[in-house]
Amino acid sequence: MKRIAVLGCGLVGSTIVRDLSEDTSVLVRAFDVSAENLARVARLPRVETARADLSDRAAVGEAVADADAVVGAVPGRLGFAMLRAVVEARKPIADISFSPENPLELDPLAKERGVTAVVDCGVSPGLSNLAVGRAAAKLDRIDDAVIMVGGLPVERHWPFEYRIVFSATDVIEEYTRPARLVECGRVVVRPALSEVELVEFDRVGTLEAFNTDGLRTLIDTIDATNMREKTLRYPGHAERMRMLRETGFFSEVPERVGGADVAPRELTETLLFRAWKRAADEQELTVLRVTVEGMRGPQRRRLVYELFDRTDSAGQTSMARTTGFPCAIVARLLASGEYRDAGIRPPELFASDERVYATLVSELRRRGIDWRERDEALA
Amino acid sequence: MKRIAVLGCGLVGSTIVRDLSEDTSVLVRAFDVSAENLARVARLPRVETARADLSDRAAVGEAVADADAVVGAVPGRLGFAMLRAVVEARKPIADISFSPENPLELDPLAKERGVTAVVDCGVSPGLSNLAVGRAAAKLDRIDDAVIMVGGLPVERHWPFEYRIVFSATDVIEEYTRPARLVECGRVVVRPALSEVELVEFDRVGTLEAFNTDGLRTLIDTIDATNMREKTLRYPGHAERMRMLRETGFFSEVPERVGGADVAPRELTETLLFRAWKRAADEQELTVLRVTVEGMRGPQRRRLVYELFDRTDSAGQTSMARTTGFPCAIVARLLASGEYRDAGIRPPELFASDERVYATLVSELRRRGIDWRERDEALA
Repeated sequence: MKRIAVLGCGLVGSTIVRDLSEDTSVLVRAFDVSAENLARVARLPRVETARADLSDRAAVGEAVADADAVVGAVPGRLGFAMLRAVVEARKPIADISFSPENPLELDPLAKERGVTAVVDCGVSPGLSNLAVGRAAAKLDRIDDAVIMVGGLPVERHWPFEYRIVFSATDVIEEYTRPARLVECGRVVVRPALSEVELVEFDRVGTLEAFNTDGLRTLIDTIDATNMREKTLRYPGHAERMRMLRETGFFSEVPERVGGADVAPRELTETLLFRAWKRAADEQELTVLRVTVEGMRGPQRRRLVYELFDRTDSAGQTSMARTTGFPCAIVARLLASGEYRDAGIRPPELFASDERVYATLVSELRRRGIDWRERDEALA
Repeated sequence: MKRIAVLGCGLVGSTIVRDLSEDTSVLVRAFDVSAENLARVARLPRVETARADLSDRAAVGEAVADADAVVGAVPGRLGFAMLRAVVEARKPIADISFSPENPLELDPLAKERGVTAVVDCGVSPGLSNLAVGRAAAKLDRIDDAVIMVGGLPVERHWPFEYRIVFSATDVIEEYTRPARLVECGRVVVRPALSEVELVEFDRVGTLEAFNTDGLRTLIDTIDATNMREKTLRYPGHAERMRMLRETGFFSEVPERVGGADVAPRELTETLLFRAWKRAADEQELTVLRVTVEGMRGPQRRRLVYELFDRTDSAGQTSMARTTGFPCAIVARLLASGEYRDAGIRPPELFASDERVYATLVSELRRRGIDWRERDEALA
């Protein structure tokens, strides 16, 4: 039996626990500060739950003490400190906490402690990194790498045709934070929501793609002439968001309104959260397309990786599934010792490992996630 | 010499004073609570100014005591009480104050006092009423009457392609107040911003027209099978406004934000006022098209009245010009006794008076306002 400690039992954490609990060779200990969150997984087989304040370093150390591997699924703002605490405890970790800090800063510490820490191990960042890394391993030179990813409702309701699966705050942050991208080998910065283009997707139709700040570790780890990440929405969404942003509705500078100082963004979040609220039974989908063009020997090639997933019959969102499953699969590989490579390892750094890659893809497919790849010659 | 008292010396009031001051047979006394407003007209020939609180009935009575005619140009909320005070003082008045109340309620009083009160004497309401009334006089039956009117900037700036000439509050009110229109002879109510259609205009291009609540007195005075008023904007504006309205940004119900209760509409007005602010030298234009279809004897006819105007070389906005000039012209007719007809008289009620109509049209044209009319047979 392998012991896996799951830190954080929210939407994605609980999906990971559920997935691990189907494995008779794994014992799960799930930790969360919220008893309500823990209650969601408490009756699953081979799952123990315990309340823990995961913002506390000692509590993290204690939680992971007897684990063979750790899953990190805490809120982003706690992610970096949690990751450091797990590395210091010398435990391998698969992490989807997506902290605002750069996890690669912990690489020297992880190497020194001999710990494998797979970070950004969800869908995007996550499988998107895996695809770019895979293409990098299969090409001699990357000219263009483009990640397009989005989570969308199946039913489209005017005016936003969007539903939140996580928090409105995070989505608005995505629409305001300038996007770093690579052009001609240099990092350049563009406004979020810029360079909107229309793109076709099987089973979805026409979507729009616009710049967001999603490259994260790829900026440091991948050598590409051009590289960018774009978010996908139904057409028209970006224009509406840009209108709100440019008119000041996302501003954090307070306005004097009715005798009070109000940050417009706070009110806007309240209103958009309401407009974007997903009903419990609303179907949603996740699409990811990574297109990488470059040279293999004398030949110009295009490699395309595509993921498609929908809310499953148990009501688990494709967002939780596509984020949680890669993490759960990698956690098993870490617990069994099948993947071991000291340092901070975002997925692009193990994409060339044939066994790990094959396991990931086949396990995703076994869970119903549609993962396709093409490798074609260009004229 | 005729004495004309001008009550209210804001944007439109001052335009009226300036127009009247060019007439050597007229003495103007301009009243306003604001010394700043009065300063704008104080040095014009044959113009006296005096501060007065025009929300005070006695002050209004005193201001108009020795006038041959009165111009009403006060803020809408003061309009109805001011009008009543002038009627009680037995003075003929040309009014563009556009109060929310129905001015026709004062008709019995005006008749009893033998006072001619021309209300809604601007562009729309105003010349739009004149056109509908004119068509009514020239047809035996009105099947369809449509008023389309808008004030627009010449330069179009993303995202709203709009500038305010009066107050953002009034514009947002126009986008929220349900629109009363006539269908099959009955008054029906539709949401503001509804039934958007694209319409072509010479010298402007394609505009969109949507329902607003602008029929006012026409609902009571004109017998038409179908009648509606629509506001004109550059295409896309209505959709943006509807998005804001339906998401709650125009709501007056307070939201709890950062420890304070905030009516979203107040914040939205602040932000839109900023986004819609017109630079002092920005050119704007006003378009009005009134289309009336109906029967004359056995023949089906279409009558079309069109107005076009732009900011003039002195920097007076077309909005102030097209609102102020009709009022100034009618005020002269009242002062000279050329038009006299006791009661509350919106323009549709004197449109059949050939001399008054001819004077209005020729005087508008003399001031550079492009007014055209067509009377054509329909198949």
